[in-house]
Amino acid sequence: MKNKIQTCFSPAVYHLFQQPDNIVVVVDILRATSAMVTAFAHGVKSMIPVATVEEARAYQQKGFLAAAERNAIKIEGFDFGNSPLSYQNSEQIKDQTIAISTTNGTQAIEAAKGTATIVVGAFLNITSLSQWISKQNKDVIILCAGWKNKFNLEDTLFAGALAKKLMESELFETECDATIAAEYLIERAGDDLYQFLEYSSHRKRLKNLHLENDIEFCLQFDKYDVIPFYNGEELISMPSEYQLVDKFSVQADQKSN
Amino acid sequence: MKNKIQTCFSPAVYHLFQQPDNIVVVVDILRATSAMVTAFAHGVKSMIPVATVEEARAYQQKGFLAAAERNAIKIEGFDFGNSPLSYQNSEQIKDQTIAISTTNGTQAIEAAKGTATIVVGAFLNITSLSQWISKQNKDVIILCAGWKNKFNLEDTLFAGALAKKLMESELFETECDATIAAEYLIERAGDDLYQFLEYSSHRKRLKNLHLENDIEFCLQFDKYDVIPFYNGEELISMPSEYQLVDKFSVQADQKSN
Repeated sequence: MKNKIQTCFSPAVYHLFQQPDNIVVVVDILRATSAMVTAFAHGVKSMIPVATVEEARAYQQKGFLAAAERNAIKIEGFDFGNSPLSYQNSEQIKDQTIAISTTNGTQAIEAAKGTATIVVGAFLNITSLSQWISKQNKDVIILCAGWKNKFNLEDTLFAGALAKKLMESELFETECDATIAAEYLIERAGDDLYQFLEYSSHRKRLKNLHLENDIEFCLQFDKYDVIPFYNGEELISMPSEYQLVDKFSVQADQKSN
Repeated sequence: MKNKIQTCFSPAVYHLFQQPDNIVVVVDILRATSAMVTAFAHGVKSMIPVATVEEARAYQQKGFLAAAERNAIKIEGFDFGNSPLSYQNSEQIKDQTIAISTTNGTQAIEAAKGTATIVVGAFLNITSLSQWISKQNKDVIILCAGWKNKFNLEDTLFAGALAKKLMESELFETECDATIAAEYLIERAGDDLYQFLEYSSHRKRLKNLHLENDIEFCLQFDKYDVIPFYNGEELISMPSEYQLVDKFSVQADQKSN
């Protein structure tokens, strides 16, 4: 029997999808999960997603690096915001732990915590991620962070692209209208996601903040092969040999039972 | 300034959209709102949407006609289920009041109750509805009933079609990604909605119940020109001259203030 793919367009309705033995791919293309993938590609040891700015500040006061963003703007006093470009300084972040709170991305992780095996997806690591998922023999929920619990286009495009890659393996199928819609949308977008997103609300928001470079960066396919993996407390980089995966999956299953 | 269009894919997140002075178009193409439009086209006086089967039964016991459907199946003992075809018998329904409870459609009305001016949309009345909306000078929320609070394709296609019609009037604009996605999807569907929905979850569900005729019926454009209108207690047929509309709109506004 094939494994199933579902797509959830809002963390607010994730509870309708959750199953303990699923893989949940959390995605917030512009920009939280793109930033996380970038950070792991540049050697960060772990990232602690926290729901509130206050929690991120508390970690900072204990000596951790800390990131906080709300409404697309870095909050004053923090080491990082949500820009993936800022996580490319290996000297600064290598082997460090960063506490991070963002408008949407970390909220999505919060919604899924303790319910499934959670990994972080972005166009930046999509092929590596789809290859890993294909080896797990589990159903998949693509959890789009959206914008303040509303649907957004860029996360949906990612869901469509990931679903298409998984379906190509013939190990997956979908009966989920959201996934079918996402596949139609990525087909419609073709090769130029940037152009397709011209009228999207968040591209406009970021453009107004002169963050076009960030957008172009986040829409690159397969720049990295890291897969951030949530171990129940923090995101860590999944070892390339995938061996730790089974261990963590089992832990996630036990936790949910 | 142009009026705005938003699309909400699940009654569970409607609270993120609601504004007191908006028009909410409730849509459940397969089949509740298609059935309602059909009933009004065949002379029903009013329909009382109720959340539970028990409430529908209580109305039936008081002598009203009553309709109840769950999971696409008519509940035993009721006069009607959710099939629009069953609401075409003018002799049976003319000047009657029908209490109705369905899996998704009446739940969507329930979510929007008291928050805005509520009208009922379907492909069956889409042009008449878009013409009426264009005269109101209000922002619009297209509330897709979905399937048990999950996204569905057919309601989204309607949202795209209605949004395109409204945008043609040049009185409307949208900054809502869900609406943009819905417009792409209806463009992709082209003229053959039935074919486009081949892989959709609810078409499969209804096909398994041998309800293809229902689906084909619900996908017809502009078979009727009635617009069911929620007056705070029940759905009534909007008078063709639209004069009562302002009166009810004002009442809805007062209620929400």
